[in-house]
Formats: sequence, structure tokens, C-alpha cells
Amino acid sequence: MPASDAPAAPPAIEFWFDFSSPYSYLSAMRIEQAAASRRLQVRWRPLLLGPVFRALGWKSSPFVEHPVKGDYMWKDLARECHKAGLPWRRPSVFPRTSLLPLRVALLGAEQPWIGAFTRRIMSIHFEEDRDIDEAGVVREVLQEDLGLPADTLLDAAQSPHHKAALRRQTEEAVQRGIFGAPTFFVGDTMFWGNDRLDDALAEAALHQR
Amino acid sequence: MPASDAPAAPPAIEFWFDFSSPYSYLSAMRIEQAAASRRLQVRWRPLLLGPVFRALGWKSSPFVEHPVKGDYMWKDLARECHKAGLPWRRPSVFPRTSLLPLRVALLGAEQPWIGAFTRRIMSIHFEEDRDIDEAGVVREVLQEDLGLPADTLLDAAQSPHHKAALRRQTEEAVQRGIFGAPTFFVGDTMFWGNDRLDDALAEAALHQR
Repeated sequence: MPASDAPAAPPAIEFWFDFSSPYSYLSAMRIEQAAASRRLQVRWRPLLLGPVFRALGWKSSPFVEHPVKGDYMWKDLARECHKAGLPWRRPSVFPRTSLLPLRVALLGAEQPWIGAFTRRIMSIHFEEDRDIDEAGVVREVLQEDLGLPADTLLDAAQSPHHKAALRRQTEEAVQRGIFGAPTFFVGDTMFWGNDRLDDALAEAALHQR
Repeated sequence: MPASDAPAAPPAIEFWFDFSSPYSYLSAMRIEQAAASRRLQVRWRPLLLGPVFRALGWKSSPFVEHPVKGDYMWKDLARECHKAGLPWRRPSVFPRTSLLPLRVALLGAEQPWIGAFTRRIMSIHFEEDRDIDEAGVVREVLQEDLGLPADTLLDAAQSPHHKAALRRQTEEAVQRGIFGAPTFFVGDTMFWGNDRLDDALAEAALHQR
């Protein structure tokens, strides 16, 4: 029984992602619609994978640390995108720096434009194979694609206060046991990898009843 | 067009597994029936994960090397077994030594009893939480469960020649880019993880036409 008469918040799925993460691309492109069709809310949780990997003792992505894993991952990614009907071009740079768009994503995490912003940055990275960490690229997405006050948002995203907020969010990820992306949480229950997105959505939907 | 009038061998899926591997358990329990229902042949390829991991620079399983990954894996395994309708008990020892049953599996890889043997050893490990590397345990499976000449098979499995054959098979795995188990091959196309078993079966089925 609810403790107050306020309407209960819809059940939520937390989506932890980095724009540098190829498997996060697969989830990012469909999570908003998949959640909406189940009347679930997405909590967008951008994080920096670099510090997450360093906390595990890796200098870089496991796909770089272990080339045999990397070689396989690119083949798997192409197949997974084909299955999902998503465009795919293997990035010519990997891992790409994603700091600026992640800062903007954290700034907009509770704004109505977060889904469209995330998908557009992911497409620039994994469909168009373009740099995503340039101010000009991010400004164009905010201004031209989303009709937002780009300069104001970019200034806010790069303030010392907001830079620290992204570091804190990444520390929270490490403390909660995240070791890669995408990772989903439904309450305290963690699901790792795009292959578990449907399970995470199903778990969140259970909380609706 | 076939080069001779000999009937073509049915298309095959190679199944690389170790009895120590929890995700191999999920695949082992269903691959034979899933393949048969698509008129595919399973090529059973036991391997030693230890040398595979050492080739990647790890001292042990990644689930031991990185406890946060291990903690998550056990939760994921319990959920995956529940989804698959499989019994599950978290092994009290991990990773369990699996050398003797792997040697027997290699010996029987082309015998009609390989599927039943593999499933029985997996059940002893992941359902009954018992040691699988004891001669008494393996003998009982061969003799009582499968009605085979256990002592003869155990002697053959432990001959120097056969011990070397398992090492060679493991070296082949490393050379083909295997970095974990289960791994499936359809021709030269590799699929890693129980999550890709259905994709591998679908790929093998394509070769049937």
C-alpha cells in the first residue's frame, strides 16, 4: 500500500552506458521504445568506462587488452546489428573518447531530449564513424537536430561542478559492481550486456503489478 | 554440386566446452536435442580452459581474477538456469578440476554415448555439487549410468598418448581464437557463449540447403 496519496512513479530501468561502448549502441537504439511499450521509465545513467576498467586493473577496453576478444567482438557486433536491423560501420578509431557527449548526457539525463540525443551520438559513432568528442559535433546535434540552446548547454556541461558530477556517477557505478556496459539495474538487481536487456525489462515490468 | 556420389555429411556445429565452465553447462544440457531437431550433427570438442586463460595472461578464470565479474556471474547463472528450466546449485568449489572427465570426453567424442556422458558429468558438477575429477565418480558414470567398460576407458583416457591429444586439442582452440567456453564453430564462423547457441544452430542450418 502506498505511504501517501501521491501517484506512484512508474517502474524504472536504469541504463548505464558509455558512447564508446559498441554493445551500448545496440541497447541505446531501442531501449526507450522498448521501455515505453511496457510503460516503463528509462533512467539514463551515462558513465566513463575508462575508470571502470582501471578499477579492474585493465589499462584499456578488454577488447584492446585482449586482441582475440576484440577480433571476435567486431564480428559479433556486425551480426548483432544485422539481427537488430541497425546500421553498422566498424569505427576506424577504438575506443573513441566520449567525454564531452557523456557530460552533456548527464546534464540532460532527466530531460525529454536525452533519448534522441543518445541515439544521435551513437549513430555518429557507429553508423557514420565520426569523432563524437568534438564540440562542433555535439553542438550541431544539440542545436540542429534537437533545437536546443547548444552553447548554454555546452558551457554547463563543462563546468567544474558538472565534470565532478560525471566522475561521481562513475564512482557510483564501480561501487555498485558495474564492470562493463551496457549494464541495467532494476532496483538492486543487475543485468550486464545488451543480451540481458529484455530480461531487465521483464524484471522491471514485474514491479508494475 | 557434390564432388562424389557419397552422401554428404550432415552439417555440423562444433561445441567447445570444459566441464569446469558454468555457461558450458547451460549449452551442454540442450545442444544435442536442439541440433537433432534441426538435423544437425554436434562435434563435441572438450578443451582445458586453464591453458586458454593462461594464453590470455590470466592466472585463473576471469570470474576468479575479477571478483565483481564472479559475483555477477553466479547471479546470472541462477537466472539463466531458471529460464532454461535446469536444476542449479552453485558449486562449493570453483573452478573445479575437470581433467579426467575431459580426457574421457575426448576419447568418446565420436561415440554415441558422448552426449549422455557430458550431461551426466555436468549434472554432478552443477546440480549435485560433487567432485568430477575423481576416478570413482567417472567410473560410476561410465559403468552404472552408461553400461560401458569403465576400466578399459579410464586406462585409455589416461595413457600418455591420449593426455597429449587433449593438450593438442586445447592448443587448436587457442590457435582458432577461442578465449572462453562455451564456443561454437560452424565452419570458420565462431560464436562465443551460451547466448549465441541459437545463432550458431541457425547458421549451421543454413548450410543444409
